[in-house]
Amino acid sequence: MKVKVSRKAHFNAAHRLYRPDWDDSKNAAVFGKCNNPNFHGHNYELVVSVFGEIDDETGFVMDMKVLKDLIKDKIEDALDHKNLNLEVPEFKNLNPTAENIAVVIWNKLRPHIEVSKELEVVLYETPRNFVTYSG
Amino acid sequence: MKVKVSRKAHFNAAHRLYRPDWDDSKNAAVFGKCNNPNFHGHNYELVVSVFGEIDDETGFVMDMKVLKDLIKDKIEDALDHKNLNLEVPEFKNLNPTAENIAVVIWNKLRPHIEVSKELEVVLYETPRNFVTYSG
Amino acid sequence: MKVKVSRKAHFNAAHRLYRPDWDDSKNAAVFGKCNNPNFHGHNYELVVSVFGEIDDETGFVMDMKVLKDLIKDKIEDALDHKNLNLEVPEFKNLNPTAENIAVVIWNKLRPHIEVSKELEVVLYETPRNFVTYSG
Amino acid sequence: MKVKVSRKAHFNAAHRLYRPDWDDSKNAAVFGKCNNPNFHGHNYELVVSVFGEIDDETGFVMDMKVLKDLIKDKIEDALDHKNLNLEVPEFKNLNPTAENIAVVIWNKLRPHIEVSKELEVVLYETPRNFVTYSG
Amino acid sequence: MKVKVSRKAHFNAAHRLYRPDWDDSKNAAVFGKCNNPNFHGHNYELVVSVFGEIDDETGFVMDMKVLKDLIKDKIEDALDHKNLNLEVPEFKNLNPTAENIAVVIWNKLRPHIEVSKELEVVLYETPRNFVTYSG
Amino acid sequence: MKVKVSRKAHFNAAHRLYRPDWDDSKNAAVFGKCNNPNFHGHNYELVVSVFGEIDDETGFVMDMKVLKDLIKDKIEDALDHKNLNLEVPEFKNLNPTAENIAVVIWNKLRPHIEVSKELEVVLYETPRNFVTYSG
Repeated sequence: MKVKVSRKAHFNAAHRLYRPDWDDSKNAAVFGKCNNPNFHGHNYELVVSVFGEIDDETGFVMDMKVLKDLIKDKIEDALDHKNLNLEVPEFKNLNPTAENIAVVIWNKLRPHIEVSKELEVVLYETPRNFVTYSG
Repeated sequence: MKVKVSRKAHFNAAHRLYRPDWDDSKNAAVFGKCNNPNFHGHNYELVVSVFGEIDDETGFVMDMKVLKDLIKDKIEDALDHKNLNLEVPEFKNLNPTAENIAVVIWNKLRPHIEVSKELEVVLYETPRNFVTYSG
Repeated sequence: MKVKVSRKAHFNAAHRLYRPDWDDSKNAAVFGKCNNPNFHGHNYELVVSVFGEIDDETGFVMDMKVLKDLIKDKIEDALDHKNLNLEVPEFKNLNPTAENIAVVIWNKLRPHIEVSKELEVVLYETPRNFVTYSG
Repeated sequence: MKVKVSRKAHFNAAHRLYRPDWDDSKNAAVFGKCNNPNFHGHNYELVVSVFGEIDDETGFVMDMKVLKDLIKDKIEDALDHKNLNLEVPEFKNLNPTAENIAVVIWNKLRPHIEVSKELEVVLYETPRNFVTYSG
Repeated sequence: MKVKVSRKAHFNAAHRLYRPDWDDSKNAAVFGKCNNPNFHGHNYELVVSVFGEIDDETGFVMDMKVLKDLIKDKIEDALDHKNLNLEVPEFKNLNPTAENIAVVIWNKLRPHIEVSKELEVVLYETPRNFVTYSG
Repeated sequence: MKVKVSRKAHFNAAHRLYRPDWDDSKNAAVFGKCNNPNFHGHNYELVVSVFGEIDDETGFVMDMKVLKDLIKDKIEDALDHKNLNLEVPEFKNLNPTAENIAVVIWNKLRPHIEVSKELEVVLYETPRNFVTYSG
């Protein structure tokens, strides 16, 4: 019996959407208000899901406490109260759109999830905008 | 890398569940309170999702501002503060159940989404009842 | 020790904002889309609160089951799946704005709450618009 | 046209995570605070979804009132305000983790859903922890 | 300038409503399903608010981190994953209704809040039932 | 009959907590992660409430459309996608804590609300931290 277990977490960060290889007018035309050079920010809400067989012994797919600590360790500590563009190495040459942030989070978590299990990341940039990445 | 991007929107409308080719007692038996001939209404909450490749240049699957404006133009302007049975042509001969409204919304949006991308519509009729349609 | 106990409930209804003693152009100018003669509708979410002394014996200000049943009996049965303008006597000569609906609900509940206790009604017309009335 | 219809419900229950064939220290090591022999509890929020063809006549995949009554009858009456370990037969020899509770709910509902339709159960143990089971 | 600052927290617990000085039939009549001798439980959501002058130097009424840690220390550690009736001394002779739990929480926090500031506790027993206590 | 009408809005912004007249170590000690010189950010959710008499003619305390447009004009246009410290004049010499932002918003709206009516601002900095200011 395969079940998907999901855990919510959150972090706050500043960012801007911007490509250094584009001039200002192209950045402004494509990214609009999100291109503000002084940055803006979000409360990112994150849902991490792991899909796999229920362990007969424990009744768990994955211990939620372990998943909670993993998200704290690998994601919240790396991104919370940070400026994504300036302080998070993965975005040095990558535009921190919601799509790209979700992929970065997935890549940071994947090595720590059993290979037999599937991983999904849902990232809310605002309560009205969110993205889903499953690898 | 394929990601699903989602945008929430909302509209308010009146409707009744009813088939003109059924007599009153059959309409009442099948649709209950929802068959009230004087109509009732809902705050419909809508989540529109587009699934596809991240554009290397922008980092977007689809620009959320474009998606927001598309939903405003094609869905909110057509359905908000309307009587679905009397004022929305698609429901002239179609019972405006949540299922059918979701299909109508999907059909109205599909031509405006790139063919290489998938479209999903989730429609909340109430916070407790909702439907999902993916074509 | 005085405590406020609160219970959430909900009902769906159709309405229009409209004064029969105004002509169409004045109704349209003041009430905009809410004046649609074919009606529109909402999922009204309701929070009813009763403020008073904790009963020493039960530890209750008011039994939540009793409050739940009272709201069902006096409010949900009267308003749910109704057209407020056409089917609810209180709005025969009263414009069903959120403000007026909250006052009507308060007036319907007040006789059934102990006189020593205070009553408050919060009514969400949408998740973004709501009103509060305390008598 | 296949649509997924979803209905939210809820129940409150006490439980503990525990295996009678393990000694106390192993139970404590694996299940932590959830192993408290005096029990703790949750407000379980449940989303039941049925996926299938829209019926041409009614416009329904499944009548939401029927689905609501089915969940009341088979799940809420069986689990609400209960001690899952002591009072629910399915957990006599099964650890009531969120994963196992979701499977039990799915198994209780499956015989009452048309065979041509798919069934999915999402169970929120807390607003931050939830599981999904689709058979 | 006086401002109210609010912080959300949560804990899970088991309880039953029950008076040892009443016989079983009176307990059942008054407390219904909540009187289950095997206990049931809830995810309690808590909002703690402190009202007072903004400090000119910091711009804080009260540092949210300090408030968060205080709630963790005095409330979550005392109540989370506990059986309120059996394990929390304050309920040894006090029926753990939502009203009484809110008063107990308020009393536990009050000595740790500056005397010049007001304290309010809102406790959600379920998403539909909640209570407010301000001393 | 006096009623409180409330309208929700939102904006995203970057900020840091910081006093230029303090040295770095004092800023770090008092403001912790919120003192990051590269900024972090939030989705601020705002609830603006106006309390006053229901107008006999319209049934409104204040037209929600007018309130919505006022919040857009005076608050969202001034704060959305901005760096509060660098781009919003009110915070040139004022630490942008949630408390101070709420006071600034209240001061910006107060001149545009009828003097006979009361104004309240609730500002969510995160879903878990919020402040309330009523003048």
